[in-house]
Order: sequence, then structure tokens, then C-alpha cells
Amino acid sequence: MQSLDDLFLHFLQDVYYAERQLLKALPKMAKNAQLPALKEAFTAHREETVHQIERLEQVFEKLGKRAKGVPCEAIKGLIEEAEEVLGDSEVGAVRDAGLVACGQAVEHYEMARYGALIAWAQAGGHKDVVGLLQQTLDEEKKADKLLNDLATRQINKSAATTKAA
Amino acid sequence: MQSLDDLFLHFLQDVYYAERQLLKALPKMAKNAQLPALKEAFTAHREETVHQIERLEQVFEKLGKRAKGVPCEAIKGLIEEAEEVLGDSEVGAVRDAGLVACGQAVEHYEMARYGALIAWAQAGGHKDVVGLLQQTLDEEKKADKLLNDLATRQINKSAATTKAA
Repeated sequence: MQSLDDLFLHFLQDVYYAERQLLKALPKMAKNAQLPALKEAFTAHREETVHQIERLEQVFEKLGKRAKGVPCEAIKGLIEEAEEVLGDSEVGAVRDAGLVACGQAVEHYEMARYGALIAWAQAGGHKDVVGLLQQTLDEEKKADKLLNDLATRQINKSAATTKAA
Repeated sequence: MQSLDDLFLHFLQDVYYAERQLLKALPKMAKNAQLPALKEAFTAHREETVHQIERLEQVFEKLGKRAKGVPCEAIKGLIEEAEEVLGDSEVGAVRDAGLVACGQAVEHYEMARYGALIAWAQAGGHKDVVGLLQQTLDEEKKADKLLNDLATRQINKSAATTKAA
């Protein structure tokens, strides 16, 4: 990584890998959620992720690079934490609260990544990809807010009244 | 994890582990940063992290639990990504830009974690720990903003003019 372009490409490959891992993880989160609105949120975000991946492929294309991912240890860890919650809980509001927290951690990770990519695209010579990346960043923020609203309005209250067996 | 209390305790242990890992990682990030203001940001955040750990210990105490961490795969992955940037770059603005991105990803992770803990403390019966957690959340947001400002005002512009050897 000798130039901002190198750095940009590395983090682009990192987030490309991350989005593709998420595409595989989200159906499992949807399947294991209890609250219909939470199932729907994960399912809808999977659909968004399909388009986010397409947008990343457009960014690679504009840079004249082949779309490829590089293993991203952070997303692996974030997904592993969601697996842990699933492994250690049963269907219900407590599990839903845990899944929301894992989902929000993923959204926050992506916000940080897209934020950096946008800043670098603006500082370097890639202003033509800013719009594509911004569109995805806006979706990630919206997905985070939706999870937050579901948790504070409904899930956490149900989870608080769930007593240990 | 059968109750919201179980979930809260698990994520509290997770973030306690994460903060202690960060305490070890931040001096390395400070040492390898070139821009004095970035070195200072990482060093100052290490000091803040000491107090954040103390606050978590106070939360454990208020819950009547022993302070202990559980391995957190996400923070391991986030720190590993910073190591990758260090391994693949040389001292200079490009490395600084990469370190900022890694630092911001960590801050975002912590924001998500403290946000969930605060929401659960409010929904459950732990309103007495909300203030401690909120104080740390505010610091994480401020640390993220400082990194962002350093990058957009200074580091990214320097990095953009760094040419590959």
C-alpha cells in the first residue's frame, strides 16, 4: 500500500468480501428471528445487499479493476458473534435482542468502511464513484436505524419480561 | 442466554475483553503513525480506554458480578486489520489514512456495543449503570469524530499526493 489508490483498492476488496459473507449470513438471521418485523428487516437488508454488491462491482469497473474480495477478519468475527448468540439462546425476544445488537454492529462496521472509502474517493481522483458508495452508506444508516427502532420500541421490552427458565 | 440480564452480561464481558485488547493495540498504532496529531489522538484514546475499563468494572460491581472478559472475535478481527495495514505499508500519510480507517472501525464497533448495552440497561432493571455507559459512548463518538476530522482536513490530502515508488 504505497498510494491512496492502493489503500482504496484494498478496503474496497475488503468490503466486497464482507458484503458477500453477509449475503450468506442474513438469511440465517432472518430464519432465527421471532418477531416478524425483525425477520422482514433482515430479509429486506439481504435484498439491499445484493444491490450493494452490484454497486461495488460498478466501482471496481470504473477503476478498471477486476471485482474480487480479500478475506476480512472483522466481518468474520462479527458473523461469528451472531452465530454465538444463536448457539447460546432459544427462539424468542432475548435472542431477537441479541440478533439486533449483532446486526447493528455489522451496520456500524460497514458505515465506517464506506465512510473511509468515500473520503478517499473524494480526496483522490475517484469522484465518479462517490455517488455509488454514498447510496450504500445511506442504506446502511437506514438499516441501523430500523434495527434500533425495532429494539427500543418492542424487542427490548419483551426481552426484559422474559424470565430465565 | 435466557434473559435480558444474561445477554447484557455476555455483551458486557465482550466489550470488557475488547477494551483490554485495544489497550494493548493503541500504543502500536500511536508508535506507527507519522502525523503528530494522529499519534496524540491514539495516545489520548489509550488514556481514555483506561478509564473506560474502570467504568466497566464499576458496572460489573453494580451488577454484583466479577469483572471478566469473553473472547470477542470482532475486536480480534478489527485489530488484525490494523496489523495488516501496518504490515503492508510504510511510515507516511498513506499508512496514517489506513490507521485512521481502522481506528474508526473500532470506534464504530464500540458505539454499537455501548448503544446496545445502554438500551438493554434502560429496558431492564439496570438504570443505575446507564450513566457510566453513556459517558464512554460519548467518548467513543468524540474519538471517531476527531479521527474523521484529522483524515478529511489533513491526512487524506497528503495521502492523495503520495505517489507509488
